[in-house]
Amino acid sequence: MNFKTVALLHPGNMGTTIGAAAATSGARVIWASHQRSQATQERAKRAGLVDVKNLTDAVRESEVIISVCPPHAALDLARKVAEHNFKGVYVDANAISRATAEEIGRTVTKGGASFVDGGIIGSPVKQAGTTRLYLSGNRAPEVAELFSASMLNARAIGPNPGAASALKVVYAAWTKCTDGLVLAIRALAAIEGVDQALSEEWSISQPDLTRKSMRAAAVAAPKAWRYVGEMKEIAESFAAAGLTPGFHDAAADIWQRLAPFKDRTDPPPTLEAVIDALCASCNKLR
Amino acid sequence: MNFKTVALLHPGNMGTTIGAAAATSGARVIWASHQRSQATQERAKRAGLVDVKNLTDAVRESEVIISVCPPHAALDLARKVAEHNFKGVYVDANAISRATAEEIGRTVTKGGASFVDGGIIGSPVKQAGTTRLYLSGNRAPEVAELFSASMLNARAIGPNPGAASALKVVYAAWTKCTDGLVLAIRALAAIEGVDQALSEEWSISQPDLTRKSMRAAAVAAPKAWRYVGEMKEIAESFAAAGLTPGFHDAAADIWQRLAPFKDRTDPPPTLEAVIDALCASCNKLR
Repeated sequence: MNFKTVALLHPGNMGTTIGAAAATSGARVIWASHQRSQATQERAKRAGLVDVKNLTDAVRESEVIISVCPPHAALDLARKVAEHNFKGVYVDANAISRATAEEIGRTVTKGGASFVDGGIIGSPVKQAGTTRLYLSGNRAPEVAELFSASMLNARAIGPNPGAASALKVVYAAWTKCTDGLVLAIRALAAIEGVDQALSEEWSISQPDLTRKSMRAAAVAAPKAWRYVGEMKEIAESFAAAGLTPGFHDAAADIWQRLAPFKDRTDPPPTLEAVIDALCASCNKLR
Repeated sequence: MNFKTVALLHPGNMGTTIGAAAATSGARVIWASHQRSQATQERAKRAGLVDVKNLTDAVRESEVIISVCPPHAALDLARKVAEHNFKGVYVDANAISRATAEEIGRTVTKGGASFVDGGIIGSPVKQAGTTRLYLSGNRAPEVAELFSASMLNARAIGPNPGAASALKVVYAAWTKCTDGLVLAIRALAAIEGVDQALSEEWSISQPDLTRKSMRAAAVAAPKAWRYVGEMKEIAESFAAAGLTPGFHDAAADIWQRLAPFKDRTDPPPTLEAVIDALCASCNKLR
């Protein structure tokens, strides 16, 4: 094990399990509770992460920093770490475009750190086989080794910083966009009065879509607030390549309308409640 | 059988089999070869449709006219039929928005016809169970009866003209949009150099998508030229309801780029060829 101390910023639902995975493999995993919520503190404590209270100490004590935060906060966090003159390995594991990842790379390397790009695919790590952490950059193999004894499948995919973010972009470009699309379709069907006919037709020819729309309501709608930023990063990625940003700008629009379901997971929203919320957001009354 | 003579305008790949289904049930099915291609003439002949040469005779001889044509041509065809003072039942079975369907309804009823709205879901009728013709409007049940002895499943879904088009809209809003999306994603993955990694991740967590992208290239790309108009009709439907038109405007953009694959079905395009075409349409070179 090359690295003894890893800082995890910040312990959200996903990040906490990434930190715990590093701890499983023998690293000391620290975090900084300053300005974090009570829920985050409890989550980090349950996972056995060590609270060093503030960012200054987290930066000073760690050889690796792993950033796991909402997409719109990723660059700010990197800037703060760079201001603290971090010299270790900075891993950005967020759902951001290649361009944003590269900007984060420039930001942290200017301060003397090494940059490893990351992209997480799957659910929080609670069992083996559910979650991959893709890593790219010169020091990606060393970072992957941090998780060698854990249930997290860490995969170094080459020296090109930006590749891991690009992979996450093209992956989420399907999953989170089509969850938004299927909910928008259900809303339009409700507005047009053809929801029952659509359900019957789907049961014949698209048998997965009823389940997909229920799952999008229950699982995705509570995360809609942070999907907005991710969809915008993906839209920018398509635009930068000369393809259309439209699919993901539209998905951002749908997730923005569902942002009020933030963290409503107990119980999760019903499909009916999500369709009603989308319909209520429309100009046209049913 | 209420109707003895049905005109089918025009006998494309789909329409020909709809006409043949009406003929199976005992109707005389006519069409008008004026200004139609050699391929259409051969297709209609093979299906046993009776050529009355011109629109004037088709209108005069028929009690029902069924319009099956590219979405962008549907309104023009209805106007021509109305100019001929058609007094029978006009069935628009095209992939158009409710608003366009309603405009077609106003156009043909002004001339004295009855209007039945239609939406076809499925493939050309070659075996039972593959194709539904949804119908709405006061006379929808009579039109459905035209196909009672055929392999086409015709379903009257109520008196509301526009409902059948709305159903077709919400149905195709998934299928043809996601075919465009998956091809756009493959193109971005190629441009970003992460296509191999994406394929490997999909094989773990999204096992249907490799097959879906290959099928979109082989089956959808040759029809891209007429998907453009359909996507615009769908985008307008979402916009009219107060939802975002963005998903389907983006799909129209992708299908427009693939329009040069028109009718390239023998052999069908490979996924590689379609990805190459999308990449070539981008500003950024690989």
